[in-house]
Formats: sequence, structure tokens, C-alpha cells
Amino acid sequence: MHLNDLGEFALIDRIVAHLGEAAARDIVVPSGDDAAAWTTVEGYAVATIDALVEGTHFRRDTMSMADVGWRAVAANVSDLAAMGAEPQYLLIATLLGPDVTLEDVDGLAQGIGEACVAMGVRVAGGDIVRAGTTGLSIAAYGRARQTTDDTPVLLRRGGARPGDRVAVSGHIGAAAAGLALIETGRGNQVAAAPLVRAHRRPVGRVALGRAAVARGVRCAIDCSDGLLQDLGHIAERSHVGIEVALAQVPLHPAAVELLGAQVALDLALGGGEDFELVLTGGREALMALDGARRSGSAGAGIPRLGREDDVPVTLIGRVVAEHPGEVIAWAEDGSVYEPPRRGWDQTRDTGDR
Amino acid sequence: MHLNDLGEFALIDRIVAHLGEAAARDIVVPSGDDAAAWTTVEGYAVATIDALVEGTHFRRDTMSMADVGWRAVAANVSDLAAMGAEPQYLLIATLLGPDVTLEDVDGLAQGIGEACVAMGVRVAGGDIVRAGTTGLSIAAYGRARQTTDDTPVLLRRGGARPGDRVAVSGHIGAAAAGLALIETGRGNQVAAAPLVRAHRRPVGRVALGRAAVARGVRCAIDCSDGLLQDLGHIAERSHVGIEVALAQVPLHPAAVELLGAQVALDLALGGGEDFELVLTGGREALMALDGARRSGSAGAGIPRLGREDDVPVTLIGRVVAEHPGEVIAWAEDGSVYEPPRRGWDQTRDTGDR
Repeated sequence: MHLNDLGEFALIDRIVAHLGEAAARDIVVPSGDDAAAWTTVEGYAVATIDALVEGTHFRRDTMSMADVGWRAVAANVSDLAAMGAEPQYLLIATLLGPDVTLEDVDGLAQGIGEACVAMGVRVAGGDIVRAGTTGLSIAAYGRARQTTDDTPVLLRRGGARPGDRVAVSGHIGAAAAGLALIETGRGNQVAAAPLVRAHRRPVGRVALGRAAVARGVRCAIDCSDGLLQDLGHIAERSHVGIEVALAQVPLHPAAVELLGAQVALDLALGGGEDFELVLTGGREALMALDGARRSGSAGAGIPRLGREDDVPVTLIGRVVAEHPGEVIAWAEDGSVYEPPRRGWDQTRDTGDR
Repeated sequence: MHLNDLGEFALIDRIVAHLGEAAARDIVVPSGDDAAAWTTVEGYAVATIDALVEGTHFRRDTMSMADVGWRAVAANVSDLAAMGAEPQYLLIATLLGPDVTLEDVDGLAQGIGEACVAMGVRVAGGDIVRAGTTGLSIAAYGRARQTTDDTPVLLRRGGARPGDRVAVSGHIGAAAAGLALIETGRGNQVAAAPLVRAHRRPVGRVALGRAAVARGVRCAIDCSDGLLQDLGHIAERSHVGIEVALAQVPLHPAAVELLGAQVALDLALGGGEDFELVLTGGREALMALDGARRSGSAGAGIPRLGREDDVPVTLIGRVVAEHPGEVIAWAEDGSVYEPPRRGWDQTRDTGDR
């Protein structure tokens, strides 16, 4: 069946069917009215919106439409994870370019559904329109924990303090390494699989963000623009300096093996879109996040990490009072890292990645 | 200054400055972190997302970028108004096409800001990306009234009951008439001004939706797809029939004068995008909404209508148990209206309006 043979409502019904249990059917007003409605509790709403468009954020030759849907969900969920919030509902606006087929829409909805189930969110509503460019815009809503005295507990970019240690989850640069391997025709190599997966199926670190909040960590950002640029956002908003020990940055072994240590490092520092968490806080609290994973014991009141959050947390540097706003990355020989290229600036990018 | 000379964050700062008091600066977490955060009360959240893209939903030769921004806000606010909800916050994803200038972005932000102030909402956050097509995706978040027994009070598409009367606010078809006049080179005629304004600067009927809820009305939709199609949505979701007296449909006098009564009627029934409210409910309640406007007295517990909601409410038909799912529009001579064209179906439209 051709996409144009379906009316808007038949298409929406088909998408909702593909979403499966990811479609929020039992809320006060599910999909199908002027707006969605759900119950709220007294507290704090946390919300974000992101757009992913073909040519700027994804290419059809490096990922399927199912991957595009998954990744769009992950990017939004990751923003809430980086606040330490609990994601609840997504609203999804889908832009269908002129070349989109019904199979593409099916794939997109399937990828969105799989990502929602994996990351514990549901789709409350959406919009679907014809456009010159294919893309997705997702708004994600969640809630924040509260302390007993009613202050919101959030991971803020401005929450870093001199004396804090800096940590990252998972492996940094894996997504960019996966993309680089696909682009050079090596994406099908067996050794490349975890890197390709990091590019196509990244995971928002929801349980980790919530565990960090529960352990007293108050500063995080998700690694989406490249590690150095993301650390720069923390340094600027917190009015602190950040020093990183390059040797400590957790590169993916497959990236080092297939691309070499230097390229793997460059991709980690400048590549972006790993959606790992960058955290600053006390050494004990950060190390406990790693230890909880290994021991399987979360501790009282600490959310248990799910399988998707079963990632290492690695100390990579420290927060200092000196050089506020600036990030300095040191090599073991005492030299300062000079990036080969800028991080990801969406307003300058012209669509060639 | 050229758009490409500004980094993403400088551009966002510039947009926030243009938004003026429409930027939500005093919420828990304003723009600038991974996500926005605000306080919630126990009750019901109402949320919607819409995308407006160039070529499909607007053309740069019929409206300025400021109009585009205004209209995108109005379309979203209108969805919440049609639920009887109180809009609070917007999240805005902006897609910048290759031909967009810094002046365009300034104009867009200004139009968004003006619309937010006029309709009582604020921008809590957003995203700005380069894309092949220019467009906006806005997610709007608001809250619903509650009864004392904790049930949400909303205007649902499925809330129409046989015996209800059908009413519309304002004039129907004015926006489509304005667009038709612009397209035929008559948009600058003095008499066309209110119609051109209806196309470029529509207003979500927030206070009217809330007043309707307070008066016991339980069914509404906003008039965005054309009156017949929007009534069809109510008929389908409510499993009722709807009968409309064509002679009662409030056409704009300027549309009748400039385009003739038949074209004005065709545009009202099939044109769409007026963002007026279509309501069904008891005759007294619906007429009181019109009377409140004229007397200036809202009544105890009834939100007072703002200037932007100072529109007539006109009875145009009734809800019947017969022909469920079907809308029949009767002319005064007893003939049934046959539409000259379909209403607006976004998945079929190829961008020529």
C-alpha cells in the first residue's frame, strides 16, 4: 500500500499499532483528541524538545528509519536523564519528506516503540505532516525528585564546584567511531558491531541519572556535542575550570583497535552523540555509581540500575577554581590537547555529517 | 551580521532577548540547561505538539516570518483551548532552512513573543537546528480544571450527545478568505485587512474554552481542518450525527463582500485554520458564552473573557442520534451541501497551499 492511499487518521492508527505498548493508551486523554492529558502530582515537571532532521542529524545511508526513530527518542530521554529526572511521556511531530514510503513510516514507528520500551517512556500524542525534509521533533516530559523540604533535586549544568571530580558513563566516542566506520565501508566488520550500535541505538542513561541525584550528585550534562564541548558547557555555566586526564577517558576498545588510539581519542573529545552522562561531584558518590553496578546492590533509596544502565562510571578529571569557563585536557606527557576540529555546532553545520 | 557568524548559544541568547517577557525566566530551570523545569500541582497536565513547515503550512510570500511564529504559537495554544485547558509553557524546535537570514530569525522570535504575550503563555525552552526546510515544531503544556471530586474537566471530541446544540466562535472561513485574497493579489485592499489578519495572526480562544468548561460544556474542537471536517471528527468520536444550518454559519462580512457568498461559504466549510472553537452543549450554556461577551459579566467562577476572546458565539446546528459519524449541512431550500473540495488532509497535501 502506498503512503498517499492512507488518510491522516488511518496513518496515525497504523503508527499507534506499531508503537505497541509504547503508546500511552490508559492516560486521561490518549492520542486522538486536540491534546493529550495525564495526571500530575505536586512537584516538578521537567521537559525538553529536540529536532532531528535528515541531512543535519542523520543520513539514510548510515541508519534505517527504525534507527532514526530510536535515536530521536534516545536524544530526548537523554536530556531528561541528564537532569536526573524520570521521563514519562513523549509528544512526537513527524515530518515526512517527499521520498518517504509507508514502509519507512512503519520502520520509524517500530524504532520509536522499541526505544520507548527500552527507556521506560510512552508516547502520549503527536502530529504528522508532509514536508520538504524528513525529520522528527520530540518533546519529552518527566518529573523530578523532591527533597523533604520541597526543593527540586536536579542535575544542573551550573552545579559543578571546585573540588568536584569529573566522571563519565560508558565509553566516549563510540557513536562517532561507529559512524566513521560506516562512512569508510567498514561498518559490517564484526569488530565494529558495538560501535555501529552506539551510533544507531544509543541509550539515555535514565537510571544512572536518577541514582546520581539520589547519591547527592548535582551536576551533569549528556554527552551530545563532544566531550570537550560538553565539559565546556559545565565550565561556563558553573563558572569553574575543568581539567581532564586524557589517559583516563574511557575509549571503546573496538574504536582503538579499528581506528587507532589517536583517532579514537579525537572522536571521543570532539565527536559527540554518545548520550553518555558527564557528571561532577564528590569522589565517593561518583565511584559508588560504578560500584553499585559491579556489586548489584543499589543501597537504600537509590534506584537500582537497569540493564541498559549497566555501564561503567569512570573518573576522568576534576573541577578547579582556576581558569573559569575553560576546559584543559592533559596528556600523560604533560602536553595540552589541541582538538583537530570543532565540536558539533548545529547552526553552522551544513548537513555534511 | 550573518546568521552563520553566530554560534548556537549566541543565537539562542538573541532569540530569548527578542522573546521579551514571553521567555519564561523565573521558572525552576529556564532555557540553557539540558531541559526546562517548572512546578506542578496535583491535577491534570494537557499537552500537544504541532509542526508547521514551509510549503505545507505556510508560504513566505503570504506571511512574514513574524506571522509564521505567531501562527505556530496560535495553532498550539488553540489545541489546548479546544480542551478547555489553561496553556502555560511552550517548547519550540526551530528548523532553519538554507535561505534563512538572521533577520528572519529575529522576525520569527518577535512574532512568537507577541503571540505568547497575547495568548498568555511563555517559552520554557527549545532547540534550533539547520535543516533542508524551514519550519517550527511547538509543544504546548498546560493544565486542566478539576471538579471537587477530582475528575478532569475537559472539552473532548467525544463529548457530544444527541440533543446538544452546535456553536462556533467568531467568523468561519476568514483565514482561508484572507489567503485567497493574498493569492489573487487583493490582499492589500482595505476591506481585506481583517481577513488577511485572520490568516496571519489567528488567536487561540483560551478564555472562551475555559469559560465553556466552567459552564458545563464538555465537547469542542478547534476549527483547523475546515468546519465540515472538524464537525466530522466530533461526529465520529462521539458516535452521533450532526446537522448544520448553512444559513447560520457566521461568515465574515468582508469575505462575502469580496469573494461572494458562495465562495465565502465554501471556504468556511472546507478552508480551515481559523482556530475558532466548535462547541456542542446545552443551548443555554452556549448562548451564555455569547451573552457574557455582550454584557461584560462573566458570572461567579467563570473566567472573564479577554479582549482576544471578545468574539460572538453562534448556534449553527444540532447533534442527533441519527446518521452517527455523519455531518449533514442543510441549505435554506432544503438541499444538502456538496463540498467543492476536500478539507485539509496533511498527509495527502503536497505543499501547494
